[in-house]
Amino acid sequence: MKKTETLYLKVAKIIEDQIHNETLLIGDKLPSVRSAHTLYNVSLNTIKLAYLELESRSMIESRPKMGFFVSKSSQRNLELPSVATINQEETKNTPEDLIDKVFGTLNQSDVTQFALGIPGKNFLPLTKLNKSIITTVRNRNDAGTSYEPVQGTEDLRRAIAKWSLVMEGKITEDDLVITSGAMSAVYNALMAVTSPGDSVAVESPAYFGILQAIKMLGLKAVEIPTHPLYGLDLDALKKVMPEITACCIVSNFNNPMGFQMPDENKKELVKMITAYNIPLIEDDIYGNLYFGTERPKPCKFYDEEGLVLWIGSVSKTLAPGYRVGWIAPGKFKNKIIRQKLVQTVCSPSLYSDVITDFLEHGRYDHHLRNFRNKLYTNFLQINRAVESYFPDNTKISQPKGGFMLWLELDQRISTTDLFNKALAQKINFAPGRIFSQYNQYNNCMRLTYALEWNERVEDSIKKLGKIVKNSI
Amino acid sequence: MKKTETLYLKVAKIIEDQIHNETLLIGDKLPSVRSAHTLYNVSLNTIKLAYLELESRSMIESRPKMGFFVSKSSQRNLELPSVATINQEETKNTPEDLIDKVFGTLNQSDVTQFALGIPGKNFLPLTKLNKSIITTVRNRNDAGTSYEPVQGTEDLRRAIAKWSLVMEGKITEDDLVITSGAMSAVYNALMAVTSPGDSVAVESPAYFGILQAIKMLGLKAVEIPTHPLYGLDLDALKKVMPEITACCIVSNFNNPMGFQMPDENKKELVKMITAYNIPLIEDDIYGNLYFGTERPKPCKFYDEEGLVLWIGSVSKTLAPGYRVGWIAPGKFKNKIIRQKLVQTVCSPSLYSDVITDFLEHGRYDHHLRNFRNKLYTNFLQINRAVESYFPDNTKISQPKGGFMLWLELDQRISTTDLFNKALAQKINFAPGRIFSQYNQYNNCMRLTYALEWNERVEDSIKKLGKIVKNSI
Repeated sequence: MKKTETLYLKVAKIIEDQIHNETLLIGDKLPSVRSAHTLYNVSLNTIKLAYLELESRSMIESRPKMGFFVSKSSQRNLELPSVATINQEETKNTPEDLIDKVFGTLNQSDVTQFALGIPGKNFLPLTKLNKSIITTVRNRNDAGTSYEPVQGTEDLRRAIAKWSLVMEGKITEDDLVITSGAMSAVYNALMAVTSPGDSVAVESPAYFGILQAIKMLGLKAVEIPTHPLYGLDLDALKKVMPEITACCIVSNFNNPMGFQMPDENKKELVKMITAYNIPLIEDDIYGNLYFGTERPKPCKFYDEEGLVLWIGSVSKTLAPGYRVGWIAPGKFKNKIIRQKLVQTVCSPSLYSDVITDFLEHGRYDHHLRNFRNKLYTNFLQINRAVESYFPDNTKISQPKGGFMLWLELDQRISTTDLFNKALAQKINFAPGRIFSQYNQYNNCMRLTYALEWNERVEDSIKKLGKIVKNSI
Repeated sequence: MKKTETLYLKVAKIIEDQIHNETLLIGDKLPSVRSAHTLYNVSLNTIKLAYLELESRSMIESRPKMGFFVSKSSQRNLELPSVATINQEETKNTPEDLIDKVFGTLNQSDVTQFALGIPGKNFLPLTKLNKSIITTVRNRNDAGTSYEPVQGTEDLRRAIAKWSLVMEGKITEDDLVITSGAMSAVYNALMAVTSPGDSVAVESPAYFGILQAIKMLGLKAVEIPTHPLYGLDLDALKKVMPEITACCIVSNFNNPMGFQMPDENKKELVKMITAYNIPLIEDDIYGNLYFGTERPKPCKFYDEEGLVLWIGSVSKTLAPGYRVGWIAPGKFKNKIIRQKLVQTVCSPSLYSDVITDFLEHGRYDHHLRNFRNKLYTNFLQINRAVESYFPDNTKISQPKGGFMLWLELDQRISTTDLFNKALAQKINFAPGRIFSQYNQYNNCMRLTYALEWNERVEDSIKKLGKIVKNSI
């Protein structure tokens, strides 16, 4: 017993030293208990005790079925990004051209894609999806050729409602409308609840797709200061409530900041919008990509009046190109259905059948479990890499899920300029400027970490860090 | 020689009598030359001469690879529908609920579907489409999961450009944007060329989808009197040119009237819109379903300034549920692409690949040839059935292609009321009221004849005729 005690502490000390001298880096996987047992020539139990000791000191963390990893808290942390004071100055410099430029690089396979808002192919169950397509085509001779109901197939809507355990039975197939991805849901939700000229409150920084939709519909975005851990500043929102017509947010694992709005804030927000009778559009497409122990509730869960339009999709998690999203539009359902009829008639039905199949047979949940584990590992990797290669005054978000990291760099840096320099070295990212209608966040960038972590990616972060350092 | 001459005239007379006493009906297929040769116990050449004789008298008509059919002009014709005087009175009676009601019956398999705007399943090459899906999925492991370029895949755009022989090389892959069916193209075209409050000239009666899109975008439809054979009244259009911002029409095999706008009118129209610098949105989704000898030109063919936004789709001809359409938006291309990015990001790519495959290997053209022949046969059948079973004062369009027939009934009849009566007998149709923003066309109906012609369909037209007769 005494011997074992000494031994496991010795092993723990060896590993601790490896972490401190960066032989082992944040996010690195430790050898399996069995391998370590061979490596250190000690008993399995000694290794287990050593790992438990390191875990209790937050040096490493265990992840179900994946093993042990060097934890984020084992080393220094960079500061959190600041809450922005919104710079409402009129600007002629609009972000459209920059957005086009970024999108123009998304299909370049020789570029390390930190800008892309979807997971890399190696994260998706391609073989299973293709198998499901073939089965669907074979089972139904007319698969995909008829018009499906405008609202979407009942099978798919039922599967989504049943699968949405987080709602604890509060939505049924009747409450859902199938859309062409979440973006079409956001666009149509905005269209359903506003008229041209109205104002819509959004987070700042905000997902540029939401800002673009607001602009295209002739609406005005009111940017609300947003905390990197807690989301929308509800006091700031309260002040503008009388002048807005709707509110549109990404509540869970926000794009771009990765925060999970706390439950108390969600409740408070729903209370506020209910008091003012103002619809809340809730884009919850990242909600299932949590790093914690359970799927966070959406604001929709607290909605009694049908004022929350809750949006989901498989684009960020399973099959981006399928364009299958959905919305639970509360009291705006009929308006949404009518808009869909006029805009696109209906959705392609083959994909509806395939997604139904994935939802119904637990395949989606199985995939999500693996995907979450991989994403968390990647988050640890990119976090460690940024801390290693970027300047010490870099501020960094602490995403609680999803796959996006938000960086705030030195005030003197323009990430719009940096974009060209990085692209010349075959690296892209999303420049901060596109996340506001105003001329701000110029020293910020969003990095996606849903790509296979390999030497090239590690090296790209290193290069990016060097470009940043050389720009000051 | 003399004997043959007598003989073939005798055979011709027998068949002529059969047509006059309605043993042979309009649209009926005559026995093949070989069968008739056995039947009448005369030479093959005699039969050929008899058929040629009848053809020269427009009693029958030959159709390539299909044989001879009793022609429409062999018997009495009903009158053409009248050119409407637009009744611009304000009305509280809007057609939205009626449209919803009609759409609510489209998936009822026990209803004879004269309302449906797409071909029945038996007209579509389902097996070949499904085979193509399976091949596509097998050939590309990632088929359909990645985002394709916003503009659409280059392969599909190139295939469409190449296949659009009617344009004689005037469009290339760069000129096209892939859309989610034609309806999304129309909606986006309207959005790209107008601002809320603007006026858009349309045909009257007009396809209700166009009217709905105009309304949804906060625009005003200016209904122009439209001739059942020649389309838009250009003199009437000219008068309103100073007050409109755009024009939106279905130029070939119009929905609902089936006319083919004459080339001279198309040229004149393009000249007019060019003089006023007014964009023309041309929905040409029926253009390939011609009954004549060649595919009619679109207005786009005469467009030098990039003012015509030309729209096509496979929804009416090959695979409605795939939602693959396209637009050649001329000078509005970048705006259309940006709108698509904000609204739906991109199209589902698996279907793009399947349609590319169909276009490239001549399969689409092969299918279209068969489809046109079947449609024309059906047109003759429905025309004959309406002439037989409907009252003598029924006015009937003379479609030159497509699959829609427009009927104008006795002034006292309301087809909105008739809709319920017909539905009770498991028959639907599109009531005239939905083809105008004003309270008119109440005595009209649109019948789709792209459904397998069988006893039940024949019987449904008979029942419908009875309902009409009993309503006067």
